[in-house]
Amino acid sequence: MTARLAGIFTPNLVPHDSRGDINEPELRRYIDWLIERGVHGLYPNGSTGEFTRFSAEERRRIVAIIADQTRGRVPILAGAAEANVKETIKACEYYHSVGVRAVAIVAPFYYKLGPKSVYAYFKEIGDNTPIDVTLYNIPLFASPIDVPTVQRLADECEKIVAIKDSSGDIPHMIRMIQAVRPSRPDFAFLTGWDAALMPMLLIGCDGGTNASSGVAPELTRKLYDLTMAGRLDEARAIQYDLVKLFDTMIYSAEFPNGFRAAVELRGFQMGQGRMPQSVEQITDLELLSNTLQCMLSSHGFTNEPVGGCMTSTRPSNVNDTEVSVIVQTVLAELKRRGLS
Amino acid sequence: MTARLAGIFTPNLVPHDSRGDINEPELRRYIDWLIERGVHGLYPNGSTGEFTRFSAEERRRIVAIIADQTRGRVPILAGAAEANVKETIKACEYYHSVGVRAVAIVAPFYYKLGPKSVYAYFKEIGDNTPIDVTLYNIPLFASPIDVPTVQRLADECEKIVAIKDSSGDIPHMIRMIQAVRPSRPDFAFLTGWDAALMPMLLIGCDGGTNASSGVAPELTRKLYDLTMAGRLDEARAIQYDLVKLFDTMIYSAEFPNGFRAAVELRGFQMGQGRMPQSVEQITDLELLSNTLQCMLSSHGFTNEPVGGCMTSTRPSNVNDTEVSVIVQTVLAELKRRGLS
Amino acid sequence: MTARLAGIFTPNLVPHDSRGDINEPELRRYIDWLIERGVHGLYPNGSTGEFTRFSAEERRRIVAIIADQTRGRVPILAGAAEANVKETIKACEYYHSVGVRAVAIVAPFYYKLGPKSVYAYFKEIGDNTPIDVTLYNIPLFASPIDVPTVQRLADECEKIVAIKDSSGDIPHMIRMIQAVRPSRPDFAFLTGWDAALMPMLLIGCDGGTNASSGVAPELTRKLYDLTMAGRLDEARAIQYDLVKLFDTMIYSAEFPNGFRAAVELRGFQMGQGRMPQSVEQITDLELLSNTLQCMLSSHGFTNEPVGGCMTSTRPSNVNDTEVSVIVQTVLAELKRRGLS
Amino acid sequence: MTARLAGIFTPNLVPHDSRGDINEPELRRYIDWLIERGVHGLYPNGSTGEFTRFSAEERRRIVAIIADQTRGRVPILAGAAEANVKETIKACEYYHSVGVRAVAIVAPFYYKLGPKSVYAYFKEIGDNTPIDVTLYNIPLFASPIDVPTVQRLADECEKIVAIKDSSGDIPHMIRMIQAVRPSRPDFAFLTGWDAALMPMLLIGCDGGTNASSGVAPELTRKLYDLTMAGRLDEARAIQYDLVKLFDTMIYSAEFPNGFRAAVELRGFQMGQGRMPQSVEQITDLELLSNTLQCMLSSHGFTNEPVGGCMTSTRPSNVNDTEVSVIVQTVLAELKRRGLS
Repeated sequence: MTARLAGIFTPNLVPHDSRGDINEPELRRYIDWLIERGVHGLYPNGSTGEFTRFSAEERRRIVAIIADQTRGRVPILAGAAEANVKETIKACEYYHSVGVRAVAIVAPFYYKLGPKSVYAYFKEIGDNTPIDVTLYNIPLFASPIDVPTVQRLADECEKIVAIKDSSGDIPHMIRMIQAVRPSRPDFAFLTGWDAALMPMLLIGCDGGTNASSGVAPELTRKLYDLTMAGRLDEARAIQYDLVKLFDTMIYSAEFPNGFRAAVELRGFQMGQGRMPQSVEQITDLELLSNTLQCMLSSHGFTNEPVGGCMTSTRPSNVNDTEVSVIVQTVLAELKRRGLS
Repeated sequence: MTARLAGIFTPNLVPHDSRGDINEPELRRYIDWLIERGVHGLYPNGSTGEFTRFSAEERRRIVAIIADQTRGRVPILAGAAEANVKETIKACEYYHSVGVRAVAIVAPFYYKLGPKSVYAYFKEIGDNTPIDVTLYNIPLFASPIDVPTVQRLADECEKIVAIKDSSGDIPHMIRMIQAVRPSRPDFAFLTGWDAALMPMLLIGCDGGTNASSGVAPELTRKLYDLTMAGRLDEARAIQYDLVKLFDTMIYSAEFPNGFRAAVELRGFQMGQGRMPQSVEQITDLELLSNTLQCMLSSHGFTNEPVGGCMTSTRPSNVNDTEVSVIVQTVLAELKRRGLS
Repeated sequence: MTARLAGIFTPNLVPHDSRGDINEPELRRYIDWLIERGVHGLYPNGSTGEFTRFSAEERRRIVAIIADQTRGRVPILAGAAEANVKETIKACEYYHSVGVRAVAIVAPFYYKLGPKSVYAYFKEIGDNTPIDVTLYNIPLFASPIDVPTVQRLADECEKIVAIKDSSGDIPHMIRMIQAVRPSRPDFAFLTGWDAALMPMLLIGCDGGTNASSGVAPELTRKLYDLTMAGRLDEARAIQYDLVKLFDTMIYSAEFPNGFRAAVELRGFQMGQGRMPQSVEQITDLELLSNTLQCMLSSHGFTNEPVGGCMTSTRPSNVNDTEVSVIVQTVLAELKRRGLS
Repeated sequence: MTARLAGIFTPNLVPHDSRGDINEPELRRYIDWLIERGVHGLYPNGSTGEFTRFSAEERRRIVAIIADQTRGRVPILAGAAEANVKETIKACEYYHSVGVRAVAIVAPFYYKLGPKSVYAYFKEIGDNTPIDVTLYNIPLFASPIDVPTVQRLADECEKIVAIKDSSGDIPHMIRMIQAVRPSRPDFAFLTGWDAALMPMLLIGCDGGTNASSGVAPELTRKLYDLTMAGRLDEARAIQYDLVKLFDTMIYSAEFPNGFRAAVELRGFQMGQGRMPQSVEQITDLELLSNTLQCMLSSHGFTNEPVGGCMTSTRPSNVNDTEVSVIVQTVLAELKRRGLS
């Protein structure tokens, strides 16, 4: 029996050049940097990697570049979802041929499918893939994969060897582990929700595919190591910091732009994202970048931004009343001008 | 000023051959049949047309075939959403070159984007398209396009000439019409929700892109004509029937399989869908087909199925108690065997 | 057979005195005013009437006052939901004794119950009530009452004579009418969603319980009359205005505070609501009141506010860029002070 | 500074007599039993205790009985939410007079209120209560209390000393602890979601108000003790069992009927619930009771049911195909009879 997939697999972003195309040299440099900082594996063509915004050909090229650059130093989990099952299986074959360890396949999206269809979809893939398959459950974006479906697929398809779950729902993870582990001890459970990484590991997960590890691989790796070693007080402190960093990146800009901004701060030219942004969004992203730089500098990952960082987000000499007065004044002025 | 888009645009399905590829002769025959039965336009590459399950090349081929077959008899509204804005604009250019009247572009999906991103996305398209654009709002599947965004895009982009809204929310449609019509009298409002077609037309919509019109174009066209003529009692009776037919097709199988089953009954070889189905689903679809055949035969569109149709879905000589007894018996048996 | 409930039933608000208690004289004056302006009936203890914020004793007193003041001029539909079935049936008996036409009972709330429990709840009430019962479906706040449950209750309980549905979902209303009307021609369908009143009446509803009719009974009554008379162009124009008024009242403050503010403008002392408000909310409500006064004055229901009203919400000499500049300036200042 | 609330507070159910009234002797006996089995405190008038289905007088009586019976052996956290703030504060005063340790107040429900209203509501209570207050966040049933609101209330009201959160969302709990603990080290965090108790404690919670502890107080207490002692492998095994038990009780019947059935199995006469049940539901509950008895007997809490228990829920000699065949047969028969 092969060892279970385990550890932190980084769902890497893709740098673009000035024309918006894949920036291959920067991608190679970024992959090296991640491996050197201790991530256990790479995970191209995930949600963080914006797989839906590339063409089918580009998705293959991204994996080929990474496989070539990695040269077996760490395993690769390649996102392989395509427009339909036939195309997805072809992608599995291709990724197998370039030496990736396993593929990850998101449940069908756009249409919201029920459990029977989700089962039938993965069953056809599981029966025809030459490479190990990780189910990818992300109910926020795609049809949910429920516990009985995971159990049935694990029972019937030995090529299906893991699930990556991005729901962040701990009882759900426990239910999956209870349903599958007795009959499939080789089946791995990975969490995609960084804000729950430590407790997920403590209740039995094998690892994570965490977008934060593309930004601060040192931190995610340390959290993993401390948790697995049972050093819970230290781990908890890092998990708390990781929640702050993750929340800032995920909730302050359209996903994954906050993560792109943070990777820029680590020294990579990410280029413009493929989704157009309004002028306000570009301004917001600059402010966000400043905040992120302060967070990263507090861990020694970058310098402080020019102008420095406040020690707290709520300085004691300014109170909510002051904010309220400013806001009321502006709103009144807007009203006066008939603008609001 | 060009006339507003108006009337019923049929979001056509795509027949497959035995290998699951596009069945071109059957598609051409189906298009002719729809036009002969009075639909005002065609709408390939919509949700009903399963645009996400075809490759980029196949999507172009579908529109090219339909444009060729239609030869200008009715206008074509072609779904043009691709993986990113650059590819989408290229698709707009291609569809323009083959003579379609306008494209329809769904809001970004998979990622759930906010109003600023939705605006920026359509603004870039609206500023660069050679062909008129219809916004496509389907909040069940894609990022919602809110009223201020529709208003802003209508104000800023003259190439954006319509919205297709599949929410079925009448107050929302009223709000959009109020916000846009004063400054853009040429802007059209189309509803994609068949179960509300008559009231949508009565509160000011210009037409619909209704999946039922691919199954029973005679009925949808008649409902449109009666409603526009103010013959409300007759229209209401047809709307009621349409709700039953639409509900049966949309809620009894994974979308759009109920519609595929119904088009088969009208005499077209649709082939297998591209999404795998479980054995139970295939059985369910056969039962559904029987129900649909009864509905369609009651309007004279097909013969009754072998075995005939009941006059009502709740026959008087059978009561709920009987069903209940059967169900209880089975459940008890399942329990006894430890299966449930 | 009794005639179906029909027309506009006003879900009246309750004025408070300076101690927050029921202001009986003002309530009596308000009721007279509503009847004089043409509402077909009254509906105390609805969601608009904040039934959950009164004690069981207060709820009875409100109905008793209104019954006494109405003296049979219009029928009363009294909200009768209490903590449990036993208490609810006692309330039905009491309301019967004071002469109300029927009660309205909201589905169980707080806990989200399934169809079987919703059925069992109303079945026990329907079998034990001395007074006609209207089901009250408001899925935003309470357990939903689905179509099969409405059908089953209508079939089994002759004392259940109507449903008030506040979902605003027109296909859902069509489904209910189709399911129930054949066997229960006396069963009435009322809509609680003002923004869809005209189309609801056109597809077969009997009337509405519309909060706007407590603010502008003249308008709601006129919309009802024009729609029933088939004068659709005139009706549509009023429906559009009603959407604006309704949206402003319902979305600009916590429900039903926007309606309370508007009734104040019609000349009634409503007192403070029972739910505490923050300082910002009180300021917001003053701004809202100004907006509402302009809306109401445009129909001649009030004078314009001191300072006048703009002719449009988007004056031509001010553009979005100006707003944007102000907002950006303020946000930058807030950032500078570390407040945002 | 008073010690933080900590440990397991049991949200106790209320036994009824044959007329559906409070069964005082059985309630007293149940309270003694819980205390003897090691729960750290009691929590009457919670969601589990069906507070909304009792009258205001009954809610007071329940707390008075429990306070009298407990005689200070364990602290009491009494649910105190009433129809409005004035009545809620009166309830706080009464509960203070009978010696309870603190009250728990759910956010306003029925109406869905925004953060400003939720703040204003608790602020008015916090400024006027004579007794410590626990905020009760249960977004499934009531308006959510967001993190900034918790932080602001903790900063401004020293009488607000804890939050009970039933969302089961671990990152949310981390965010609350990060926001509040630095300035309020005396503020307690309790989880109401049994399926996440162990990981909640590991990331920093002080305890739980867990419905399962009313059924199997021995188990919940043991899980708490093992987790706090860092014996994670043993704790995890119990947490897994608790998920199964909790899921069965919460998802197999309308809440809290599964818990009522389980407490019956522990030897208490719970009487009929106050919400009517259909015949099918009563049958379902009997089957559920059998399943629960097997679960409880596996821990030695009850005997096995007559007929015994299977060793697993999925016996190896019966497969899904067999179930499928039975179901298909029945469905086909139902179809044949026109019943489905």
